[in-house]
Amino acid sequence: MTSFNDEYSLLAPGPVNLHPEVRKALALPMIHHRTPEFDVILKRVLTGIRSVFQTKEDVYLLSCTGSGGMEALLVNTISPGDKVLAIVSGKFGERWAEMAKTFGADVSVISVPWGEAAKAESVEDHLKRFPETRAVLCQACETSTAVAHPIKEIAAVVSKYETLFLVDAITALGAYPLPMDEWNIDGLVAGSQKAFMLPTGMAFISFSKKAQAYFETAKCPRFYYDVRKEKKANIAGETFFSSNVAVIRALDVVLNLITKQGLDSLFHTIHRRAEFTRIFAQRLGFTLYAKSPSDSVTALVVPTVMDGQKIRLELEQTHNITIMGGQDQAKGKIIRIGHMGYIQDGEMLKLLDCLGKTLRTFDPGSLTLEQISMVVDEGRQWLEQNP
Amino acid sequence: MTSFNDEYSLLAPGPVNLHPEVRKALALPMIHHRTPEFDVILKRVLTGIRSVFQTKEDVYLLSCTGSGGMEALLVNTISPGDKVLAIVSGKFGERWAEMAKTFGADVSVISVPWGEAAKAESVEDHLKRFPETRAVLCQACETSTAVAHPIKEIAAVVSKYETLFLVDAITALGAYPLPMDEWNIDGLVAGSQKAFMLPTGMAFISFSKKAQAYFETAKCPRFYYDVRKEKKANIAGETFFSSNVAVIRALDVVLNLITKQGLDSLFHTIHRRAEFTRIFAQRLGFTLYAKSPSDSVTALVVPTVMDGQKIRLELEQTHNITIMGGQDQAKGKIIRIGHMGYIQDGEMLKLLDCLGKTLRTFDPGSLTLEQISMVVDEGRQWLEQNP
Repeated sequence: MTSFNDEYSLLAPGPVNLHPEVRKALALPMIHHRTPEFDVILKRVLTGIRSVFQTKEDVYLLSCTGSGGMEALLVNTISPGDKVLAIVSGKFGERWAEMAKTFGADVSVISVPWGEAAKAESVEDHLKRFPETRAVLCQACETSTAVAHPIKEIAAVVSKYETLFLVDAITALGAYPLPMDEWNIDGLVAGSQKAFMLPTGMAFISFSKKAQAYFETAKCPRFYYDVRKEKKANIAGETFFSSNVAVIRALDVVLNLITKQGLDSLFHTIHRRAEFTRIFAQRLGFTLYAKSPSDSVTALVVPTVMDGQKIRLELEQTHNITIMGGQDQAKGKIIRIGHMGYIQDGEMLKLLDCLGKTLRTFDPGSLTLEQISMVVDEGRQWLEQNP
Repeated sequence: MTSFNDEYSLLAPGPVNLHPEVRKALALPMIHHRTPEFDVILKRVLTGIRSVFQTKEDVYLLSCTGSGGMEALLVNTISPGDKVLAIVSGKFGERWAEMAKTFGADVSVISVPWGEAAKAESVEDHLKRFPETRAVLCQACETSTAVAHPIKEIAAVVSKYETLFLVDAITALGAYPLPMDEWNIDGLVAGSQKAFMLPTGMAFISFSKKAQAYFETAKCPRFYYDVRKEKKANIAGETFFSSNVAVIRALDVVLNLITKQGLDSLFHTIHRRAEFTRIFAQRLGFTLYAKSPSDSVTALVVPTVMDGQKIRLELEQTHNITIMGGQDQAKGKIIRIGHMGYIQDGEMLKLLDCLGKTLRTFDPGSLTLEQISMVVDEGRQWLEQNP
């Protein structure tokens, strides 16, 4: 199987380019989830994935998108009427707050301007006033703004209370450090199509012991997302609902790749791509949107005379590169470039080159072709000097 | 890509053998769900899948297993306190009844002995007494018993009332006729890993106009399964949550295959496999478990001296064929053979041969090798004479 990356690059904040071994695994003949062959895989995956969560607790493999995993974190720990504090700094924060309201929580919001990071002190101020708050909700990386929130600091605050700290790490887990146990994160959700470089369709979640204590008392009605069922099934070596064999088998491949590479080395790989993008996109005339930029995705403010959506479209139609534009209030103002998945250095250099040329298409006053070529050369040198 | 079926047969009631074209589609490079390329596929799939549901209504593509789809049918149409009548004739009927209770419904049960079919008259009797019943729940095929319930007859009864008829057609839709609009079915759920011969991980659901009227009034808290969000997104050419690109792209392939073959021809293909299995397994000494056998799966009662689980294991370990055993009260007593998916005639003959030989392994008083060979020969002739 040849790498497709020469022809097409998916440089979005998820889904991402698949590793060739993942693609091979997805094409394997189907096997049943109640077979000795799958039993071995499931057991290995359920153990192996804990190392990415950096936890000793169980990790559950759910057939749903990341949002389903966010719902699962909520409905297993909160009850209608519970006070919940949602940090809202973009589209996914808004979604989680709305979700908690839907399930009857009494939701307070810390509203953070798009592009900025939450402050642990604001959380502390709130918890001092409302120590009975059941849960604090925060994105590790708010995908819509490419901001990384100070999860370690907020966790340190929340852990002083009875409150649970639930973290949406869909665009973060596996991309940079989020050691769940060490930092006292109480609920963590990851998505298959992000740093796990799998197709969309699975969410992986885990709960601290502090959060698990609510499984029996939480009163949100739940069936599909009731992790008590899943926990029991996992102990028996199964999943409660039909196993997502294709993706779990591919996850087995990914966990093996991560083990071989080492988690720190994986983080470095992704950090290096983010650094490269941050440095050289600025040389082309973009500025950084996020005050506290995430390593998983970079949001670039496009020069004021341009429309981010058009830049995105031009990259796709002319250069076979998919990146994302902005959402909601950032639509047209930013473009977003993902750093997770199977990305070659050549793809990053090509993106840089094409970004420069695309700017020229819309604004002849941008860098000349010669200047763009120099930036790309410098980028190539940087990549060589920073392996 | 070679067919794996020569070496290994997955003859379970789902997941099933994948079509080689489906496997190819699953291995394609990932593309983003917000691309012109995927837009075209999604639009084609959302239209095309209606022909399998035989409906003019919208069909929603959910990232979840079949059980998630069952939950979606419920939470979009019922409210806590609503009277719900559940037909329970096996494991999946039990699950749906429990699910409805979990979401606060006042659940009555028509308990049907395992292996038997529900009677439309029992439903009519109940609705006469409780015409305010919000919904009747029934499996089209109860996978645990391989029984096909009289969906057309029950629908004819329910349609005389304000009551909704919600049908779990996970092991049925695409395998035999269930024309949603013509029969007045109000909610229908299918699973990706059954007649759609895709990996596990998606459920497809549709609602009649009568059911859609409850979207706004149903009071079960719901977010991930709120089809109002999905409906709005579909109208805009998107899915609300990240699209399950890999499976939807493969579904596009499957719908194309179904269109080329014709739905009636597909039903005939599956019916023929079921007929073959019913006729020739009985010649080997098995009897049929289901009084009203489904075409999607056949349950065979194993001779009393034997354990169905051992037969299943022997087939898997010695002959590389996966079938299923019985569940719960049928465990050990039956084996279940699926008829959906990419199955060659040679696989059915091999299964027949191996079933005969496996019986001999456990009971030397079974058919002789010569007799087994004769049954297989007759089977071969039957397949030739019944294309």
